[in-house]
Amino acid sequence: FFALAGILPRDEAVERIKAYTEKVYGRRGRAVVERNHAAIDRALEELHEVAVPATVTAGTGRRPVVPPEAPDFVRRVTVRIMAGEGDLLPVSAFPPDGTFPTGTARWEKRMIAQSIPIWDPEICIDCAKCAIACPHAAIRMKVYRPEVLTELGREIPTKPFRSKEVTGLGLTIQVAPDDCTGCGVCVDVCPAKSKAEVRLKAINMRSADEHRDQERRRFEAFLSIPEVDPDLLDPVTVKGSQVRQPLFEFSGACAGCGETPYLKLLTQLFGDRIVIANSTGCSSIYGGNLPTTPWTTNAAGRGPAWSNSLFEDNAEFGLGLRLALENHSAEARDLLAGLATEIGPELAQDILDARQVSEADISLQRDHVRTLWERLKRVEGEPRASAERLLSIADDLVRKSVWIVGGDGWAYDIGFGGLDHVLASGRDVNVLVLDTEVYSNTGGQASKSTPRAAIAKFASSGKSTPKKDLGMIATQYGDVYVAHVALGANELQTVKAFAEADEWRGPSLIIAYSTCIAHGIDMTTSMSHQKDAVRSGYWPLYRYHPGADEHEHPFRLDSKPPSISFRDFATKEARFAMLERVDPEHARRLCDLAQADIDERWRLYDQTTEIERTYIGSEDEEWE
Amino acid sequence: FFALAGILPRDEAVERIKAYTEKVYGRRGRAVVERNHAAIDRALEELHEVAVPATVTAGTGRRPVVPPEAPDFVRRVTVRIMAGEGDLLPVSAFPPDGTFPTGTARWEKRMIAQSIPIWDPEICIDCAKCAIACPHAAIRMKVYRPEVLTELGREIPTKPFRSKEVTGLGLTIQVAPDDCTGCGVCVDVCPAKSKAEVRLKAINMRSADEHRDQERRRFEAFLSIPEVDPDLLDPVTVKGSQVRQPLFEFSGACAGCGETPYLKLLTQLFGDRIVIANSTGCSSIYGGNLPTTPWTTNAAGRGPAWSNSLFEDNAEFGLGLRLALENHSAEARDLLAGLATEIGPELAQDILDARQVSEADISLQRDHVRTLWERLKRVEGEPRASAERLLSIADDLVRKSVWIVGGDGWAYDIGFGGLDHVLASGRDVNVLVLDTEVYSNTGGQASKSTPRAAIAKFASSGKSTPKKDLGMIATQYGDVYVAHVALGANELQTVKAFAEADEWRGPSLIIAYSTCIAHGIDMTTSMSHQKDAVRSGYWPLYRYHPGADEHEHPFRLDSKPPSISFRDFATKEARFAMLERVDPEHARRLCDLAQADIDERWRLYDQTTEIERTYIGSEDEEWE
Repeated sequence: FFALAGILPRDEAVERIKAYTEKVYGRRGRAVVERNHAAIDRALEELHEVAVPATVTAGTGRRPVVPPEAPDFVRRVTVRIMAGEGDLLPVSAFPPDGTFPTGTARWEKRMIAQSIPIWDPEICIDCAKCAIACPHAAIRMKVYRPEVLTELGREIPTKPFRSKEVTGLGLTIQVAPDDCTGCGVCVDVCPAKSKAEVRLKAINMRSADEHRDQERRRFEAFLSIPEVDPDLLDPVTVKGSQVRQPLFEFSGACAGCGETPYLKLLTQLFGDRIVIANSTGCSSIYGGNLPTTPWTTNAAGRGPAWSNSLFEDNAEFGLGLRLALENHSAEARDLLAGLATEIGPELAQDILDARQVSEADISLQRDHVRTLWERLKRVEGEPRASAERLLSIADDLVRKSVWIVGGDGWAYDIGFGGLDHVLASGRDVNVLVLDTEVYSNTGGQASKSTPRAAIAKFASSGKSTPKKDLGMIATQYGDVYVAHVALGANELQTVKAFAEADEWRGPSLIIAYSTCIAHGIDMTTSMSHQKDAVRSGYWPLYRYHPGADEHEHPFRLDSKPPSISFRDFATKEARFAMLERVDPEHARRLCDLAQADIDERWRLYDQTTEIERTYIGSEDEEWE
Repeated sequence: FFALAGILPRDEAVERIKAYTEKVYGRRGRAVVERNHAAIDRALEELHEVAVPATVTAGTGRRPVVPPEAPDFVRRVTVRIMAGEGDLLPVSAFPPDGTFPTGTARWEKRMIAQSIPIWDPEICIDCAKCAIACPHAAIRMKVYRPEVLTELGREIPTKPFRSKEVTGLGLTIQVAPDDCTGCGVCVDVCPAKSKAEVRLKAINMRSADEHRDQERRRFEAFLSIPEVDPDLLDPVTVKGSQVRQPLFEFSGACAGCGETPYLKLLTQLFGDRIVIANSTGCSSIYGGNLPTTPWTTNAAGRGPAWSNSLFEDNAEFGLGLRLALENHSAEARDLLAGLATEIGPELAQDILDARQVSEADISLQRDHVRTLWERLKRVEGEPRASAERLLSIADDLVRKSVWIVGGDGWAYDIGFGGLDHVLASGRDVNVLVLDTEVYSNTGGQASKSTPRAAIAKFASSGKSTPKKDLGMIATQYGDVYVAHVALGANELQTVKAFAEADEWRGPSLIIAYSTCIAHGIDMTTSMSHQKDAVRSGYWPLYRYHPGADEHEHPFRLDSKPPSISFRDFATKEARFAMLERVDPEHARRLCDLAQADIDERWRLYDQTTEIERTYIGSEDEEWE
């Protein structure tokens, strides 16, 4: 602008801009300043005149915003907002009850990746790490009878699926090329290496321009493969969870986001029976920003129910959802008992006595409820009114999994008063804290989760106090299941924690380490970097299980004693490293304190593994 | 009314009233119903006609509401409100800055006691239990050189003061007869028994009508005895604290209140340097209800600064007070250093280097600041402006003790979000939770502090969940001093906890067991009953000291393992006993769970005493 506008002499303008760049970015180090200066020089070099022809000469139009097979609502409403014409929509275009159709993110093809991952079945070892790590559910995994491919008659790369549980199945891993952000996390976490070529893995980044058409065809063919029978593989494993359809896909979260893999996993484990209360924060933005939402449904039209409440009341909001479900369930059980003759005493008893612990149990209960629906529709005469009421609430006879989701700003700070109240309630709710250790969505303010020595807004010279230990606080209730997880460091521990939290009929709290652009790391290493967080003892992995009989010691440390120093971990993150440049002496003192925090915390946890506790239970224990 | 008004036949009316009484009080037990019936019968028996003379015959007028020696504000303003004429006061009668004169409760002579305690110096063993237990500061204790009494020439009962620290002093214990509520707590806790007469103690309840005049004279004479030199006796003992003047006196709290003795003790330990942020609740009502306030000052005109904030922000409000004091102190230190030449380098250095740990240290600092004031007034010329500014804030060079006070409704529930934030701040604030385990002031609603099996509003069939363990939650911060105290069970542990909390330069939290009329106990046993709470393990006594080097194990249990059952303790309290009458089966189950809670909690605490922790400290550790 200044080079063209002639407001200042060109050289003086450039000199001043560079000086200002120095002032603003100086504390981030010489390299950052130089990259900025290079960008300015490059912009000047590339200045050239663009001749604008007098008339339109192109013969092709723009691609339609969504393809014609998109559902009615997307074509009528969503597409208008995507095209920037939202203000032209009449109020009558929107659902009158405030609900919003889900599964719409798949129609918003962003195509932002310059390179996309391509699967190599020759090298793959079926570990599923690429799929579980993908922040955008853009890496999909399916297993199937090999005949399926022949039946479909499409070009689909395949390999035999290695599994201890089942034999004779085929496996395909496929990228959604238009939804991938090109973050490279999948390649970073892939442990399988080619014997022939050193840098080749089982999944590799390739030019999007060159491969998009082929991968589009392959992805479309991949989607036509039937979903796996949910009872075929144990879902509480890394592989078992990843061959299940994600019901959270293609969100607008940052490339390499550390939060979204947890939400995707949630839907793979319990997707068709979860109810989510989502606090305001990043997850409410990428989870429900108009025009599209990444929350979606399976082929049967079932999926998570999702709602965003206020920053300050999300835990209470989720508790309310739980209480409503319990009331419905209790009423449905009463009605069912009263209608036993009409719908068959055996079916009634099966439904009333259902265990509903494992996913297989719940799948069975769902089948029974489906039969119940059919029979209820045929009830005649005087019990008709009861049958109709039961029809409307019978779905709540299937156990729901209520998840209260939010970031650390919500859980540690603004919503903590309510979170505490909900944890103390003894009710069957699951809390998932997507812990980025900072208010990510509002621009990086320090929360009580921010660790000592990290720079953040309101902690511009490094946070002087240690991170609040929310997990250990929650263990004090005695009946709260608590887990401290980091997907990138231990996928299986994360999967198990999710399953145990859902199974536990009291409150559960999972604190999930979520790498974030606010940390100032190379987001391609979003997952692998979490290993260092765990290795240094900065993020210990543990599970506190209040109720299981076999655990005399309810507190279990799932990670090993620290093997690298805090400094080894922290120097890779700008939030810690920045202070070193500005005030090395102060940085050193804070770094020593942060190391002492880690040592002390580890010692405390290690001692806590020896503490015996008995779960006392409560009066109204049984889930109905 | 019904006996006289003839609306219903007298017998039918009485029968119906009795039936209704049965309905309302039936669940409280037969004895309560019968006492109500007896009251109805007695009222009927005592009905008699009162002849109203045609003219006034009495020759005496009413006593003035306050005596003429009351201070100006009391005579102009307070007295009008006391007389029910508050609406007639102009706005200009009130202080324009929102502050309100303290020390006014002493002018509101309630004279509600039918019997008052009289001290017997022959039997007394100087234990000070009566004084520390008195909820209304109506039992006073002074020690003095024996010559003082001769000099005063007044009738003052006396005895030689037994003490390991000092010899040759006299002791007097005296009731304030018009301010005593006649609760009898002092007599209940008195351990000294007459050898001659079985039921005689060192303090005994006597008819107020017969003894009021004598005790009024004695109390007036007692007040003329000079206050003890604060450095004479260690204040961190039961005796040492009780010979110091209380600066919280004659509140309107219930007879036998379990909260007020803690506040009185606070003023005896740190009274002339405390700043209190008081949450809404009982303590804000008896602490600051118009027209009078029990907060008062010593002879030098110094006393606590007190303010009531909202229920939901009291912790934050108190933190703000602390931050303001720290800013003043830092500014004062800067000014002082700059004025060292003018006011004398030695004095400046003494003030800047002052230790200010013990009360004696602080007393010395106050002397130095007094000298500083004098010298500052004489500063002339150019440094005059600095001197004037320093004069206005020099008082903040004396260490202040900031106390954030409230009930369990505030600390466990409504204000917990903020309390957590303040505890995590690392700042030097002291939190005192007056834990009645129920929302006392608003009529007895359950809080998260309400124990399992207790009946309360919102828990009408007994609370099904256990009490929240606020103390153990607070220990998780690592730098919070935490104490669990019960004055009636162990006075010395309470006194020590208060002193340690004040001394600790980080956050402190004291959870103080406060017997309450809502518990349904005989309030005469308000203090002695607390022994059972501790003996049963229902209320363990402990102190968690994060910083002291000599404590390798920072968590110390101060009470012995349970020696009586929960049931033994609980049957004396209507809140637990009521359920037994309504639903014995349910009561038994809850009682078993409550016992299990106690056993488990004790086991956990006992294991916690073995946990080693190191206090890590922080960057800006030093108090200035």
